[in-house]
Amino acid sequence: MAEPWTTTGATVWFTGLSGAGKTTISEILARNLREHDVRVEILDGDVVRENLSKGLGFSKEDRDINIRRIGFVCDLLSRNGVIAIAAAISPYREVRDEVRSNTTNFLEVYARCPIDVLSDRDVKGLYKKALAGEIKNFTGVSDPYEEPLNSELVVDTDRGTPEEYADRIVDALEEKGYLSRRPAPAAARHDEVPA
Amino acid sequence: MAEPWTTTGATVWFTGLSGAGKTTISEILARNLREHDVRVEILDGDVVRENLSKGLGFSKEDRDINIRRIGFVCDLLSRNGVIAIAAAISPYREVRDEVRSNTTNFLEVYARCPIDVLSDRDVKGLYKKALAGEIKNFTGVSDPYEEPLNSELVVDTDRGTPEEYADRIVDALEEKGYLSRRPAPAAARHDEVPA
Repeated sequence: MAEPWTTTGATVWFTGLSGAGKTTISEILARNLREHDVRVEILDGDVVRENLSKGLGFSKEDRDINIRRIGFVCDLLSRNGVIAIAAAISPYREVRDEVRSNTTNFLEVYARCPIDVLSDRDVKGLYKKALAGEIKNFTGVSDPYEEPLNSELVVDTDRGTPEEYADRIVDALEEKGYLSRRPAPAAARHDEVPA
Repeated sequence: MAEPWTTTGATVWFTGLSGAGKTTISEILARNLREHDVRVEILDGDVVRENLSKGLGFSKEDRDINIRRIGFVCDLLSRNGVIAIAAAISPYREVRDEVRSNTTNFLEVYARCPIDVLSDRDVKGLYKKALAGEIKNFTGVSDPYEEPLNSELVVDTDRGTPEEYADRIVDALEEKGYLSRRPAPAAARHDEVPA
């Protein structure tokens, strides 16, 4: 175990198109934080739809309900000292801002990547299907994506590595006062005990 | 702040009829734990239906979905060092046992009270309405309640005070190893530092 970091708890709220790297960055971020004894949970779109939102579809109304539920759970976690990472597409600005205003220590990260890069890359073959009209309500193709105007952090995921973006999120958490990479006070006290 | 207690995190899962005292005991338990610096969240039926399960009804299927969602959130909290208190009626045995098997440090508390006592007391006037046929799917009157067979704790809420039951839950948490009322190690170390 590396030197422990301390956290107040926070919500790292990704937004961005399918394939933009939200889940990949989340997993690297979570691993880095856990190495420093920070409690972390990832709430990705699939896990949440299975456990909290089965039966909801992809209309704006259903997407908004789904996002509010993720926000509710993130707040429960972040106000209890956990770093909750939400890795859903989260396409609508208004509900993102609603969640921001209801959630403890909220940090929005926009995983930005041009749609032509995503559809060229097309790791899961979803863009091809969406462009052929085989998937309805596909964000960025047949469903809206509203870019954030005031994200705490924007990462251009066609230009660097997920490891770099994960590090930038740790920096942003520290700048906001939600995380400290200095040793915890208890550890410091321990060091001071004479041998 | 009283002497801090330590916890591994746990889920205190109430089951019992409407009016049996689940919420009252939960609130006293939560207050006691917080006084000792223990992180606590109460997930009561109303809060969850508003935030996670709007649109669900009171059929067995919908109730089971609601209970699974509460279980999912309790597990997220309890595996992160929080004591999650679920205070919903939770009438069906099979889904309670499913949640038990999926949840970290699960402690079921059956708030048991005879239905004639509850309908005599009838604090919210709901039993009168249910008995008159004005509320459908009212647990214990027009909808089933399956008593637990193997609760970790049964409290007979027509015989004592909520304070007593809250204390018994703390005892049960300690017996299970989920909570310790001994001082935390960090505090002990601090005491040992020479003046």
